[in-house]
Amino acid sequence: MSISTLRERLGEVADINAAIALLQWDQEVYMPPKAGPGRGQQLATLSALSHRFFTAPEIGAMLEALKGKAAALDYADARLVDVASHDYDRATKLPESFVHEFAKTQSEAYEMWVRARQDSNFALFQPLLARIVELNRRKADLLGYEESPYDALLDEFERGMTTARVKTVFGVLAPKQSALIERIMASSAQPDVRWHDQAWPIAAQWEFSEKVLRDIGYDFDAGRQDKSVHPFTTQFDVTDVRITTRLSEHDLFSALMGSIHEGGHALYTQGHDPADRRTPLLDGASLGLHESQSRMWENMIGRSLPFWKHYLPALRSQFPGQLDGVSAEQVYGAINRVSPSLIRVEADECTYNLHIILRFEIEVGLIEGAIDVAEVPEIWNAKMKQYLGLDVPDDAHGCLQDIHWSHGAFGYFPTYALGNLYAAHLFEAILRDIPGLWQQVEAGRFQALLAWLREKVHKHGRRMLAEDIVRKATGIEPGSNAYLRYIESKYGALYALK
Amino acid sequence: MSISTLRERLGEVADINAAIALLQWDQEVYMPPKAGPGRGQQLATLSALSHRFFTAPEIGAMLEALKGKAAALDYADARLVDVASHDYDRATKLPESFVHEFAKTQSEAYEMWVRARQDSNFALFQPLLARIVELNRRKADLLGYEESPYDALLDEFERGMTTARVKTVFGVLAPKQSALIERIMASSAQPDVRWHDQAWPIAAQWEFSEKVLRDIGYDFDAGRQDKSVHPFTTQFDVTDVRITTRLSEHDLFSALMGSIHEGGHALYTQGHDPADRRTPLLDGASLGLHESQSRMWENMIGRSLPFWKHYLPALRSQFPGQLDGVSAEQVYGAINRVSPSLIRVEADECTYNLHIILRFEIEVGLIEGAIDVAEVPEIWNAKMKQYLGLDVPDDAHGCLQDIHWSHGAFGYFPTYALGNLYAAHLFEAILRDIPGLWQQVEAGRFQALLAWLREKVHKHGRRMLAEDIVRKATGIEPGSNAYLRYIESKYGALYALK
Repeated sequence: MSISTLRERLGEVADINAAIALLQWDQEVYMPPKAGPGRGQQLATLSALSHRFFTAPEIGAMLEALKGKAAALDYADARLVDVASHDYDRATKLPESFVHEFAKTQSEAYEMWVRARQDSNFALFQPLLARIVELNRRKADLLGYEESPYDALLDEFERGMTTARVKTVFGVLAPKQSALIERIMASSAQPDVRWHDQAWPIAAQWEFSEKVLRDIGYDFDAGRQDKSVHPFTTQFDVTDVRITTRLSEHDLFSALMGSIHEGGHALYTQGHDPADRRTPLLDGASLGLHESQSRMWENMIGRSLPFWKHYLPALRSQFPGQLDGVSAEQVYGAINRVSPSLIRVEADECTYNLHIILRFEIEVGLIEGAIDVAEVPEIWNAKMKQYLGLDVPDDAHGCLQDIHWSHGAFGYFPTYALGNLYAAHLFEAILRDIPGLWQQVEAGRFQALLAWLREKVHKHGRRMLAEDIVRKATGIEPGSNAYLRYIESKYGALYALK
Repeated sequence: MSISTLRERLGEVADINAAIALLQWDQEVYMPPKAGPGRGQQLATLSALSHRFFTAPEIGAMLEALKGKAAALDYADARLVDVASHDYDRATKLPESFVHEFAKTQSEAYEMWVRARQDSNFALFQPLLARIVELNRRKADLLGYEESPYDALLDEFERGMTTARVKTVFGVLAPKQSALIERIMASSAQPDVRWHDQAWPIAAQWEFSEKVLRDIGYDFDAGRQDKSVHPFTTQFDVTDVRITTRLSEHDLFSALMGSIHEGGHALYTQGHDPADRRTPLLDGASLGLHESQSRMWENMIGRSLPFWKHYLPALRSQFPGQLDGVSAEQVYGAINRVSPSLIRVEADECTYNLHIILRFEIEVGLIEGAIDVAEVPEIWNAKMKQYLGLDVPDDAHGCLQDIHWSHGAFGYFPTYALGNLYAAHLFEAILRDIPGLWQQVEAGRFQALLAWLREKVHKHGRRMLAEDIVRKATGIEPGSNAYLRYIESKYGALYALK
């Protein structure tokens, strides 16, 4: 069985997956309201088809045969066989009856979660969450693991990462990040945000975001930006990587920062090796590494002072008269304002990880059996008090706020925080390798940064594991130190901490 | 084998076809420029899949079994079995090697046609056209026919229609339509079109077209309008029927009339019976009948005087100051101006059919062997002189102008003219059944007309043949008489003919 036959078969699956991604993209951005049920049917058919084609026994046989002669394969082919085998194993280990039960429970849990959140009544959701946890434990058993059943779940989103390693890293991070926030809140040097209280015309925001996207290197000939309720990035091919944003007249920065964030994801995808087209290698190495790309562009670049020294004049002309007398320092202060809050998706850069660590600890407890589902609200609220000093008034603002569990997704949350850690880690190496980076950013030049990311991160796609990419790019073992140095230095200065 | 199994399998094919249609729609309206080759690959994979699934031997066996017990099926199921069998027979009669050769020749012919048209050099295209004709003759042999090989080709677009019948109808039509045009050109009552020579802002045109679409009953909750180079209508489901238009600042009516035309196609599809979703019954009965719906709304309604008596005030406010002193009669005259021209896609309502008849006669001659490919330019030019009194200066303005032959499509052209004839035929019945129609149109009310079309035409989908639908709706045998009465009355009055 030749590698080219395998590539043909995987190419067919990739084409079906591209059609699925387009059906989903269209559903979020342009589909008319009545088309929902029909679209659901189309997605169900194509998803089943994609799964059926990918898990065909011939593919398994081809992969087995090729693994046997891995030494004779070139690097790209060998990586393809490895990654496809990993995906194939995961996809075939779950029997169809289990997948069916999981999907059915998901949809019931989602419906009940919507009601429970509306009524802020965890008791409504509790039995469904119990079933979701039980199914995830069975899923872990089916997939197999060495230490913790949570490892098997984590592996779906962050291949190679273990629960123990995340625990160690988060264990160092949480108390230090918590202590920093406490000091920030006690500081008298709070940023001035009153000037932002104006109406910011949508059309001008849109234009400005497209200008910034172009500047940072997003290729509009191989992508486009549209509007959607929830911003996202999607890809149909390395030549077609699309992002969406959400505009609000009362917030000058949420859409722009959203665009830069999704732009970071899209730059990653646009930078994959075209040789990996129509294969499972054409994707990010992990969700965490993907998130490192979006957050680096959003937070380290987009929320930096040099960036705003460069863009403030352009922003002023985009909003005539609205920013007179506002300095780059004021913008910098306002967009980096630290304000512990109950809701993860509204959290600032400095408090965000703590929202994640809280969820990770509860997820691991549930999956490993140390926490009972009934205890979730109580534990949630206690951790919120411990990490962010906040009292949770009700479950809608607490453990019912996220959609993820209702969708059955366990092991997803930690990748958000891992993304922040990877980003800080990579960024230290970037500042080492590009000593003039901040001068370049202040001049609106991002080519050297993008070239570094292309070479060290983007082009590898899934050919290497996330941690190996970071290790090789930086020469240092990933952990939480770089991130702590980053926030302590940035927010120490901003809030005039001793 | 139960009918529900067949419906499941056909539903799968319909879902794949919906994804194909979305990939094509996106390609025309939003796809970024670099994505072309990737999209081509995705379309090739899904098209092959759709064909493979539809022509699976199990489907053939199911259809055979169900045909055997047709008496036990209800009406909808019986119609489904008949139409699916017809499609299945056509799809399976062409061996894969033939389909492959056809596709290969198509793509070579298309490339050469582009060059030949650019250079206005028929000799370049001639050998390719000869191969296309030869392939179409083989296709007709493979599909089978009773009288003329052209019947087998026509059947793809206009099931049930025969070459002999079209010849008879066009034979009556051509000389009479030609004579009418001669009288029109000789008339001294030529319309005033000078007022139209202005710039008409694009955004206002767009808004106005959406208003008119809403008024005539196009459901924007089950569709949308976008911009594209070539206007078209597409459907992913009865709940998602989309149209496109092309805007030009120098033409106030081309986009609007295009929107009404595509809106007519879309109203047809939006009016199909939802019970036929995800089956081959959910489509127009024929291309001709589809074209009757677009042309009726565009020409009989959109180019009528009552329509403009209603819309002129709204048009005036849409283009402030630009239409002062212009009357509804002037608009009516301008948009119905008759002007024989060399190019089919620019032809007015009154000359259009003659462009089609000329092509039909050449196509039949080529397929039946009475005309040699080398003779095409000469015959084309002679017929253009005979029907429209025009001298063809070069082949780019003559037999090289259309894409259809380079795509291998023979039997498609006549459906455009059949559409005009069906439309006139149906419209006479409508005026009989809705005596107050013109008063309603003048009041901007189109509900009774749409309800008539829904009941008599739209809801049937492909359950009945086009001619049977027209026959049943009107009680009269279809032919060219209604159309001749329509243009003689309309243009006789407009051009003050005796």
